[in-house]
Amino acid sequence: MVSGVPILRIDLASPRPVYEQIVSGIRALLVAGDFEPGDQLPTVRQVAVDLGVHHNTVAEAYRVLAEEGWLDLRRGKGATVVDRLEPKPTTEAKQGFAKRLEELVAKAITDGVPRSVIAERMSRVARKLGST
Amino acid sequence: MVSGVPILRIDLASPRPVYEQIVSGIRALLVAGDFEPGDQLPTVRQVAVDLGVHHNTVAEAYRVLAEEGWLDLRRGKGATVVDRLEPKPTTEAKQGFAKRLEELVAKAITDGVPRSVIAERMSRVARKLGST
Repeated sequence: MVSGVPILRIDLASPRPVYEQIVSGIRALLVAGDFEPGDQLPTVRQVAVDLGVHHNTVAEAYRVLAEEGWLDLRRGKGATVVDRLEPKPTTEAKQGFAKRLEELVAKAITDGVPRSVIAERMSRVARKLGST
Repeated sequence: MVSGVPILRIDLASPRPVYEQIVSGIRALLVAGDFEPGDQLPTVRQVAVDLGVHHNTVAEAYRVLAEEGWLDLRRGKGATVVDRLEPKPTTEAKQGFAKRLEELVAKAITDGVPRSVIAERMSRVARKLGST
């Protein structure tokens, strides 16, 4: 469990809100299976200290993840990973993914990442998803 | 040219800053080749009116795109699309892309988009990139 925390990297210099970076980072760990149902996440205070951010920021991130059905938050019990039912995707969710994917690729090309590298990375992730 | 503008959709209810949504959207259009070197982008005022946002927000987005080497901004000449040299990618750019891709996939799964749909969409974009 604790080994999961150091993988969570946030960039305080980024224009992306910190709580959003924490949400995205933990979500990626949850989807990757680094945390499993029944696992206890580190406390808000612990994560706040590790990342050097205000504990309200971490609490807000945990609340978003709880609303998404990933976490069960109980007073005094900390945050427990839930065996999550995947919701029905809305059209917005599907279209949103397609749009964000295009934008992400455009940003990578802007940053000079070769198209072949981008294509290879996406194919790899796609293969991994296809095999689960 | 003008036909490119309506494709730019922004979500005023999103927590993502509007200027960032404009930057991402136009970048995707540029990478897709919807605007070509020498093309004139609509004026800041025009885009601001079309999207219903403050013109400073659009001006800021154009400045970011100019800094990235996509646009040439000249007083009284509007914004011209530049034949852009792709920069050498930094390690941060490559790692950043990989990280954001993982986070984007995790968000889509959270929103209930089936893994097969995500994989198929990524494979399609990868194939398109590979063929250019």
